[in-house]
Amino acid sequence: MPTFSVDFLPDNKRASLGEKESILRAIIAAGIPLKTSCGGRGTCGQCRVLLIKGQVNSLDSGLLTREEREQGYILACRSFPESDLVLEIPPESRLSEHQVVLDEGLAGLLPEDTGDGPDFADLPLYKTIKLVLPEPTPADPEDDLSRLLRVIRRETGLEHVRPTLEMLRVLPQVLRQGRWAVTVSLAVSHPTIEIVWIEPGHTGSKNYGLAVDIGTTTVVAELVDLESGSTVGVKGTYNRQSLFGDDVITRIIHAESPEGMRELQKAALDTVNNLIEDLAREQGIKQTEIRAVYCAGNTAMTHLFLGLDPSQIRLEPYVPAANSIPAARAEQVGLRIHPQARVQFVPGTAGYIGGDITAGVLFTGIAFSDELVLFLDIGTNGEMVMGGQDWLISCACSAGPAFEGGGVRHGMRAMQGAIEKIKITPGGLDVHYSTVGGVPPVGICGSGLIDAIASLYRAGIIDRSGTFISDGDSPRLRGTAEGKEFVLAWSGESGHFADITLSEAEVKNLIRSKAAVYAGIRSMLHMVGLPLEAIDRVVIAGGFGRWINIRESINIGLFPDISPEKYSYVGNSSLKGARMALLSGKARKAMEEIAKRMTYLDLSAGNTFMEEFVSALFIPHTDLTLFPNVESR
Amino acid sequence: MPTFSVDFLPDNKRASLGEKESILRAIIAAGIPLKTSCGGRGTCGQCRVLLIKGQVNSLDSGLLTREEREQGYILACRSFPESDLVLEIPPESRLSEHQVVLDEGLAGLLPEDTGDGPDFADLPLYKTIKLVLPEPTPADPEDDLSRLLRVIRRETGLEHVRPTLEMLRVLPQVLRQGRWAVTVSLAVSHPTIEIVWIEPGHTGSKNYGLAVDIGTTTVVAELVDLESGSTVGVKGTYNRQSLFGDDVITRIIHAESPEGMRELQKAALDTVNNLIEDLAREQGIKQTEIRAVYCAGNTAMTHLFLGLDPSQIRLEPYVPAANSIPAARAEQVGLRIHPQARVQFVPGTAGYIGGDITAGVLFTGIAFSDELVLFLDIGTNGEMVMGGQDWLISCACSAGPAFEGGGVRHGMRAMQGAIEKIKITPGGLDVHYSTVGGVPPVGICGSGLIDAIASLYRAGIIDRSGTFISDGDSPRLRGTAEGKEFVLAWSGESGHFADITLSEAEVKNLIRSKAAVYAGIRSMLHMVGLPLEAIDRVVIAGGFGRWINIRESINIGLFPDISPEKYSYVGNSSLKGARMALLSGKARKAMEEIAKRMTYLDLSAGNTFMEEFVSALFIPHTDLTLFPNVESR
Repeated sequence: MPTFSVDFLPDNKRASLGEKESILRAIIAAGIPLKTSCGGRGTCGQCRVLLIKGQVNSLDSGLLTREEREQGYILACRSFPESDLVLEIPPESRLSEHQVVLDEGLAGLLPEDTGDGPDFADLPLYKTIKLVLPEPTPADPEDDLSRLLRVIRRETGLEHVRPTLEMLRVLPQVLRQGRWAVTVSLAVSHPTIEIVWIEPGHTGSKNYGLAVDIGTTTVVAELVDLESGSTVGVKGTYNRQSLFGDDVITRIIHAESPEGMRELQKAALDTVNNLIEDLAREQGIKQTEIRAVYCAGNTAMTHLFLGLDPSQIRLEPYVPAANSIPAARAEQVGLRIHPQARVQFVPGTAGYIGGDITAGVLFTGIAFSDELVLFLDIGTNGEMVMGGQDWLISCACSAGPAFEGGGVRHGMRAMQGAIEKIKITPGGLDVHYSTVGGVPPVGICGSGLIDAIASLYRAGIIDRSGTFISDGDSPRLRGTAEGKEFVLAWSGESGHFADITLSEAEVKNLIRSKAAVYAGIRSMLHMVGLPLEAIDRVVIAGGFGRWINIRESINIGLFPDISPEKYSYVGNSSLKGARMALLSGKARKAMEEIAKRMTYLDLSAGNTFMEEFVSALFIPHTDLTLFPNVESR
Repeated sequence: MPTFSVDFLPDNKRASLGEKESILRAIIAAGIPLKTSCGGRGTCGQCRVLLIKGQVNSLDSGLLTREEREQGYILACRSFPESDLVLEIPPESRLSEHQVVLDEGLAGLLPEDTGDGPDFADLPLYKTIKLVLPEPTPADPEDDLSRLLRVIRRETGLEHVRPTLEMLRVLPQVLRQGRWAVTVSLAVSHPTIEIVWIEPGHTGSKNYGLAVDIGTTTVVAELVDLESGSTVGVKGTYNRQSLFGDDVITRIIHAESPEGMRELQKAALDTVNNLIEDLAREQGIKQTEIRAVYCAGNTAMTHLFLGLDPSQIRLEPYVPAANSIPAARAEQVGLRIHPQARVQFVPGTAGYIGGDITAGVLFTGIAFSDELVLFLDIGTNGEMVMGGQDWLISCACSAGPAFEGGGVRHGMRAMQGAIEKIKITPGGLDVHYSTVGGVPPVGICGSGLIDAIASLYRAGIIDRSGTFISDGDSPRLRGTAEGKEFVLAWSGESGHFADITLSEAEVKNLIRSKAAVYAGIRSMLHMVGLPLEAIDRVVIAGGFGRWINIRESINIGLFPDISPEKYSYVGNSSLKGARMALLSGKARKAMEEIAKRMTYLDLSAGNTFMEEFVSALFIPHTDLTLFPNVESR
């Protein structure tokens, strides 16, 4: 099979490619982050690249206009080389190294819980202790290991401490070299504590731990000083698996071939390893000084990260390989930190309620609360937990990535140039908006979309079902081959020379998403026989929550109509929970209990959810008595 | 540095050698088993080889006669190449692949305990179980791992069962491929049980375990079918570490350099790996079907096998790196069996009371006995345990390898051609002997030496202190440059054309050995304040015990003067105990308790032992009232 070289501009990267391999493969091989929501199936039209030089065989996708084709645009996933190529990857096709939800970000509209969560101060996952051992004498001739264990027990109260063979091999020399003063490193993995290393004297070497949130779209890592417990750096990036599809299901299907599984596992690993490299470089530490990792992710992400078969998660009855993952060593999973470092995972509850949710429930303290709390994490999926100290119930709805900008042509995440707030005047004649960073708009993010729906409805552009009302006379409302659309920003104001629009199909898609979330909440309440009013607090987690206008969210019927003061925003509670687990054995124990205690309500199993869903396909709802505080138009 | 090639005859092996490296190095590199009691220090004179071709630079050792030098004999450890060489290794310089103590050997003079030891029938170290899991349903959507653990718990009652990452990676596929019928392999290592593998359906694959006795001189491996618990093969060989010295101390010194440590570790590993290869080939099994190993060895051997620093064992207060060794994986220690197979070690009590003794105490049931039992393992060292269900005391004396044939010019182990029984007529005029295998004698083994001392004393050749009585007129008694010696067999009758003799120095050496053993027994009795008569039973373990004449052993004062009916022989109780541990968790638990319960009496610490030792330097003893049943001459 002939092989061609492909050069990428402006990256100046090169890859080689067989004639039967799509250009997308070469882009993946070159490590260039490209948008491919559909995972290369030729349906999303995002992987546009410019052919600068060479010949390609492009399959017709119907996703490019004649003008675009004439300008040299091709779809990477549908194009195959016929010669050596030079390609340009335009900015709009790239997954930007976007702003991820970090604590130092802009303040959101919701009051943020900036606390540290429940107070656990005990053994981190990795701990060094400084000891002085009594020297052996004829009257006390105990072997070196027993002597060490005896002193560890006396000084720390720790039982079940075991050596590794590697540590034993240096033990006699180290004890004597340090004149019986030693620094001992313990890996605290349930159910035993392992002595992974020992050094002579009382060394001051730093030990770091890493808390990682492995999200479907975004991966965030927090570097923590294990001695002080303080954070020394946080860094986030997109999940490189996005090259193989935006949503979990696309990736699970991709993983059905061994090659696909390897690609996804490598992509996740590369993502985390790059964060580790960046954090280590920026903080001036050695990667091998990272001695422990705690990861939280949804069940599919955890499976793909570890190479566990996720295929059953998408098939009834949606069974993961494991909700609770055994501790592994860094060298076993491929993380470029200390090879013996323990890598642990927050346990999950079900295929669609993973460790990220357990971590969130831990951090927010819901599991110990005497109030009835509703926890909402609306990212690529919508996951919810309700309960308190006596019971916990969880469910997941396929909210879809609409509120993260997925499935919406001009949708995007809340980064530079995203319309985050928008107001449409009655009749849709005028539009006022603000963007992240105050720059010309390039798209619209989740909070903007909520505003837009609420505003379009109030302005009389759409009816309660999301259908565009044809008697409007706004110049912004226009028909296209695919149906009606509303212009949010004209090309003249926009940052990329095209109108930013929202179509009827997209509005209906967003209404389906909000209906799914609301129906999920109602189904849980139905399950436990409680009314909406029983909810004492609502906690919003995840990137989407930060920018949200809670009033407008209630107005469109996404969230229940309870007092906005009861809502709060918790940020990346998955990461915060993982950090707690890294630093505290009690937190790890509590997490295991939470994962076991939490009941999972499968919304696809009964018909409550479908009924609730259909009733919620209106703005705000079919049953307006559920929204007494929403003005009806 | 010039390098020369060395060819070895009749082995047809070749090694290369630098000019500063001794020929012994080349012999070790070629893997030829050579006698080197002194470990290459040029003091034992055993490593004689014949120079056939080439030039060597030989340092003067004073250990070769002029005739020998003229015949072309050189000492391998003192000779360095000056050209390419051809060497012949004569049979008498080789460590033979000698007969080791196996159960199918000849019956000894002592009644042998052929039982299986205490009855433990429970979990072996590795266990496969066949299970059928309920298929997941929407009403029972538990994750695969929890489902598996639930059924394991229900079927076996086992708690604390944990998966490995490798097993989890195949779990979903295997469960469905086997239509929920699976065969699960469990590694039962304290304190947790690990699921190391899972296969679809109910497979009939065989699983084997290995019990290994790692002795200073001899290594024996027993291949056990883990399903039935039956033995399928036993094989023994010399410990290849013998190339670096006969005794433990020489080897500990050799291990003080990193290179020496590597050599010793490799030698031990090669020894066991060769036994594994032989056993697997002979039994027609794959080496990877061996899934668990239990080793018993003295503390120094265990350290050297695992690469643990043994140097402190020979320095006061004689502290090992560890008496209790953590479970390792075969790939970690270098055994060529299933890489994930667990390798465990019987725990020891002190630097000179190792796992081999714990195993013996377990197997003989002493720890559960309401009698007072004395356990004697007299091999290269002399180790003893006394006690019963209420207490256990142990000690070790440097008996030296005399009774195993070491330090005696014509001494040898009990193999083909060894004089095993001998009787000398009054005045030393005539000698009657029998040899192992009934062939012409080539040396004398331990039981022969005991007979010889007893007989020489009765015949009036030596006095109570072992001094040769000069007024004897036997032609067999003669003077040499090194002192007097007695001819046990003339060159004409011998199997190797030289007189087989026993010198006064050797007799005194043997008397020191027997005195050390007896003084050890008396010191333990003194420690607990009991008389000799309190001993209900004496159990003899190890290779030496099999051929021993108990009456003569009492006559020379090696063993206490109690009724010979109270003595029994238990064979290789180290191997038998390791086999029990391989097959039973209760045995493993009992062993841990024994190792902890056993008190170690350091004979070098007080002065009881020295007094007892000096008093015992007579035949049978200074205090004849201790030996009422021994006729004095």
